[in-house]
Formats: sequence, C-alpha cells, structure tokens
Amino acid sequence: MSETPIGSRTLEVSLGERSYPIHIGPGLLGEPDALAPWLAGRQVMVVTNEVVAPLYLARCRASLPADAEVRELVLPDGEATKTLESVSRIWDALLEAGFNRRCTLIALGGGVIGDMVGFAAACYQRGVAFIQVPTTLLSQVDSSVGGKTGVNHALGKNMIGAFWQPRAVLIDTETLETLPAREFSAGLAEVIKYGLIRDADFLGWLEGAMEDLRALEPMALIRAIECSCALKAEIVAEDETEQGVRALLNLGHTFGHAIEAHQGYGKWLHGEAVGAGMLMAAELSARLGWLDEAEVSRVRDILLAAALPLSVPADMSVEDFLVRMRLDKKNIDSRLRLILLRSLGDACLSHETTPELLEALIEAFPRA
Amino acid sequence: MSETPIGSRTLEVSLGERSYPIHIGPGLLGEPDALAPWLAGRQVMVVTNEVVAPLYLARCRASLPADAEVRELVLPDGEATKTLESVSRIWDALLEAGFNRRCTLIALGGGVIGDMVGFAAACYQRGVAFIQVPTTLLSQVDSSVGGKTGVNHALGKNMIGAFWQPRAVLIDTETLETLPAREFSAGLAEVIKYGLIRDADFLGWLEGAMEDLRALEPMALIRAIECSCALKAEIVAEDETEQGVRALLNLGHTFGHAIEAHQGYGKWLHGEAVGAGMLMAAELSARLGWLDEAEVSRVRDILLAAALPLSVPADMSVEDFLVRMRLDKKNIDSRLRLILLRSLGDACLSHETTPELLEALIEAFPRA
Repeated sequence: MSETPIGSRTLEVSLGERSYPIHIGPGLLGEPDALAPWLAGRQVMVVTNEVVAPLYLARCRASLPADAEVRELVLPDGEATKTLESVSRIWDALLEAGFNRRCTLIALGGGVIGDMVGFAAACYQRGVAFIQVPTTLLSQVDSSVGGKTGVNHALGKNMIGAFWQPRAVLIDTETLETLPAREFSAGLAEVIKYGLIRDADFLGWLEGAMEDLRALEPMALIRAIECSCALKAEIVAEDETEQGVRALLNLGHTFGHAIEAHQGYGKWLHGEAVGAGMLMAAELSARLGWLDEAEVSRVRDILLAAALPLSVPADMSVEDFLVRMRLDKKNIDSRLRLILLRSLGDACLSHETTPELLEALIEAFPRA
Repeated sequence: MSETPIGSRTLEVSLGERSYPIHIGPGLLGEPDALAPWLAGRQVMVVTNEVVAPLYLARCRASLPADAEVRELVLPDGEATKTLESVSRIWDALLEAGFNRRCTLIALGGGVIGDMVGFAAACYQRGVAFIQVPTTLLSQVDSSVGGKTGVNHALGKNMIGAFWQPRAVLIDTETLETLPAREFSAGLAEVIKYGLIRDADFLGWLEGAMEDLRALEPMALIRAIECSCALKAEIVAEDETEQGVRALLNLGHTFGHAIEAHQGYGKWLHGEAVGAGMLMAAELSARLGWLDEAEVSRVRDILLAAALPLSVPADMSVEDFLVRMRLDKKNIDSRLRLILLRSLGDACLSHETTPELLEALIEAFPRA
C-alpha cells in the first residue's frame, strides 16, 4: 500500500504477471486520464446500466484520453440481466465496432455489470483487457478482488463464467452517495464478513466505525474498503482458483443462497441474505461449542448496526433450507460442508455439522 | 517422449501445472480404462457429433470406468454448428444432469467438437476438466496442442473463446480409417506446415513418407502426428497466449482465411485453404529473394503429393483478397503482417511486403 493523491489509497493485488492496482478515494472518477494508464490500446468500450449511466458515464468518459475511440453500451439494470444473452450483446457490440484484441472493456456499475463485462472480456477473442469501476459498496469490496466473472443460468447462479483478472480497479467512494441505503447495508454485510473470517482487529474497528460508515465519512469508507480488499486479496493469493482457503469467503453464503433461491433472486439482496446467513453460521458455531453467547451477540449487534436482517423469511421451512443447501455448488460430490467460526476473526471449513444440529438450528432461528 | 504399449507413443506437453500427455497409437480408443487416469470425478459427459457417434461412441464408453456416471450429447456435424448456441446446449445438459465442478467433458470428434467442448469446459462453473479424443488428422495435429477453444460469431471466426488446456489427449490413429480422403489431405496441410516453419529435417522425411501416410501406415502416422504435436508444443511453450513466435503457426492462414471467407466457410476445407495459402506465402518469399525456384517447387510438389489444391478460386479478384486480409484478427491495429519463409524450415513474421508486391503475387497466382 502506498500514499497517492491526498485522501486516496492504492492497494496492489499480487498475482505474478496478472497483478493489478486498486485505487480507492473520493472523486477519482472524472479526474482527467485517471483510466489512461491501463488501456491496452485506443479502442475502449464502457459498459454500464440504465441506472448508473445518467449518474457516472460522463465522469467515466472524462477520465479517458481524448484520442481514445470510445463506445458505450448501456444494459438494463438488475440481476435478471446477468445472462449469456447480455454478454452476447457485448460481444456483438465489440464485433460491430470492429474492436480487436487490443481493446479495453470498462465495467462501470455494480457486481452484475462487473461479472458480465469481466466474462465478456475473458472470452472476447480469447481474452482482452478490462478495468473495473465498481459503483456499489458490495462490488467495491467483493468483485474488485478474485477474478471471478460470469453469468447466471436458469438452473443456477454463476454457473457459466471464467477466472479473469482486471488491469486495474478504480473505486470512487463518492459514487456511494447515490447508492440506496438498503444496497449500502448489503455491502456492509460483506465488509463485516472479512472481519469475521480473518481479522478480529478489523471487526473491532468496524464495530466502532459503523455510524461513520453509514454517514459515508470518506476516511472510514476508504479504510473499510481497503481492509476488505486487502483481506480478500490475501486469501485469493493463497488460493487463486478456489481449491482451499478461499472457501472461507463463503461464510454465510450457503444459508444465504438458500434464502435467495427460495425467495426468487432479487427479492432479498445478496448481502442481506449473507448477513442472515452469517448469523446462522455464528449460532451453529455456538451450538458446536466454538462461540459463546457474548460472541454471538456481537455478531447480531454489528449486523443490526449495519441495518441488516436478523431473521429469515417466515415462509421458509427447515426442508426449504435443506433442499436448497444440498444444491449449492460448493458442495463437492454432494457432501454438506459449512463455513463456521472457531472464534470471531477465525473461520474454518467444517464437516462437523450433523443433520440433526442443522435442522434444530434452522427450526429455532427467528422468522420475520 | 517415452515408449508406452508397443506401437504407441506418449508426448508430454510441458506447461507447468497445466502439463498434459498426448497418447498416440492404433487402437487406443476402446482399451478398457484408457480414459480413466484423467477423470476429475465420476461425472463424465461425452460430447460428439452425428457422424462420429455411430463410429466411435461405443469405443469411447468402453474406455471409461464401469462406475462412471456417463452422459452423452450428440450435436449436429459441421462448422456451422460451432456457435455459442451449441455450447449453450452443452451447458444446459451439464446443469440438467446436475454435474458439479468435478465433472469431466470428453470431446470426441474433430476440431469443431474440440473447440466447442473445450470452451464449454473452460466456462462451466468457471472451469472443469476435459479430455480430447480427436478423430480427424487436422484436430490431432492442431487442436491437440495450444489450448485454444471457442466458437464462431456471425461477424468472424473464433471470435468468442478461451485458452483452456485439456487433462490429456488420446489419439487413436485407427479413427483415420473412416476419415474422407479430402479431410485427410486437409490435415496433411497442417503437418507440412510444421515442417515448413520450423523443421527442415521433418519436411524432408515427409517428402519421402507422403505415400505411406496416405496409405494410413501406422508407424508413419504416429511419427507425423508426434512430430507435428511436438513442434507445436515447442512453439506454444515459448508463447502460450500468442504474443510472439506463436504467430508463425499462421503460415498460409491469412491467405487461407481470405479464401474461406470469400467462398463461405465450409466450401473449402480449412486445410485446403491453408495449403494454397502456404504456396502463396512461399511464392511471396521467393519474390522477396528469400527462396529460390527449386525451393518453391519443393513446396508445390509436397502439396501436390498430399492432394492439396495448388490454385485459388477462379472468381477471387486481387481486391477480394486484400479486403479479407485486412480484416484478419492477427493484424493488430490494422497493420498488414505476413508469415513468410526465410528458407524451408524457417518461417518469420514479416512487415516487408509492399502492397504492390502483394498485388502482383495475387494477380499472377493460378486460378482454378
């Protein structure tokens, strides 16, 4: 990490020849030539959605060199557009523009845009450059690191995709000013997750900083985003293609995916479902004797302070959870494995949950 | 390279942790458990086409372990099926079968099947295992090495794809017995290409072995395939993602693509167009003073011995060639670069061709 312009920070994600920087700060988008250093050539396509375009597309263009050949593609908003058909539209636009292997794709938007544009870049002429400009807290702390790209399929989320690293990530914290509060809270769930799985000090800092974060205080935002990205980068560097430790990033996700799938994707935000799922994982850890009640309360309190749900949908039965959880793609050869907490700041992949324990937990968990 | 069962050979393609073996020999397909060592788990999907299925699908199944959960998908034959829609059918089938990240795809067929199945494997759940069982000479000597996968787009060939390495390649030379003679000749064009670009000794051997090859003499086939794969592997190991020396593999391809595109893909076989393109490259090299007339004659003679065309379509004007050649995706930022021959066995990437020289060559080249 090094100091760049006052109030902004740069974090380097170390992946050998695929290493790249993450720049974090207020007002980065719109600075002249802010995106210039990472362009592969003059051909640039900015892909965004109908919500983000009127807010930030002009600033994005202002950060590109005057001599760039810039095309824009504005897709509909929302998880429902995260399909192979949308990615095909990007490929069509690239080919219609006559863009070659030295073009650069810029993903301006949240996680859906980032995942789709990253996948489009991964497979256009077998791989071209792309830059991420994430405009939601969730995408800033999650999609910025890890190289996961892809789309949903009727039969499952993120089933089609590739690992593909960006050339750079530019995070303008001012874009959070236009983010709906509910989406901001959903992003905080992932921030809290990094503390829970790997860094008790960061978790402690977050407990005190939650009010500043929700007030969008720039220095608090920069620290929360930087620490989150750094923690994720550490884990990804240890395990780039998700064979081992990277599974810990799925804390709360097996429960969360069950909620999202049962409700129909989009009704609960991903971060909301993960928030409730992390509380379920904490309570299950307590039932295994790993956490005490005070620790579970700390998890509940920080989720509450982030305005995240502490209960699951009233109409979800134990069976609804179990059926969905067995379908989760993290369960190699259909064995149920769960990420649990040995202590706050120390997650592990556990096979110790018995079906009875799991059923009792789900049965007793609050409904709303 | 090491001796395995009598009459078969194994070549190792060295790519660090993505290294894999190529097994070459008569009758390999059908040997019990021949495919077993490279399966990632019990879930296996064999993808083939309507022409290959009745000939070799049963043998392929016989080479899989009895306890494997095997699914089969039979696609239509031909380059016209090399589309994103076909790859989507593979993804649909994998998801409908409930296959997880430890499944294995087997590509049983020619280059079209190999390219599509490799791409499907590259992007299913962000990458699963695949094994190539190429059944045409072209796919045996070309797709076996290099990790190029992908599909065509209405606006260009191979525009959507990924680099993805197989776990293993199994080449049963007996599958060539059912290959139409014209397709066999097209495969020979690529074999000749390896000699021309990099190995004068191999070229010399080929000149003497052409009759044995066309008679499908097993030892000659094994040597031709093994040397071709080894030469390609050397080049790919030096340049896995096609930034430099790998471009030499495109000898004859810029001319060839122009012919294929003008005629409509499928009318000329790829290898036939490349064959004529290599003769054009040789003649252009002679016009630059790099080859003498005797050397150009050797190129013409070996192509003739392989039953490849020595002329280009009668209705193709100089302009038809030039328009198509400028669109070729190997031409970064629209500069025309050509692979030419400094001598037989030594190709180079050249910028020395003037438009006048190129036009004169195309003008004078035989039409049929």
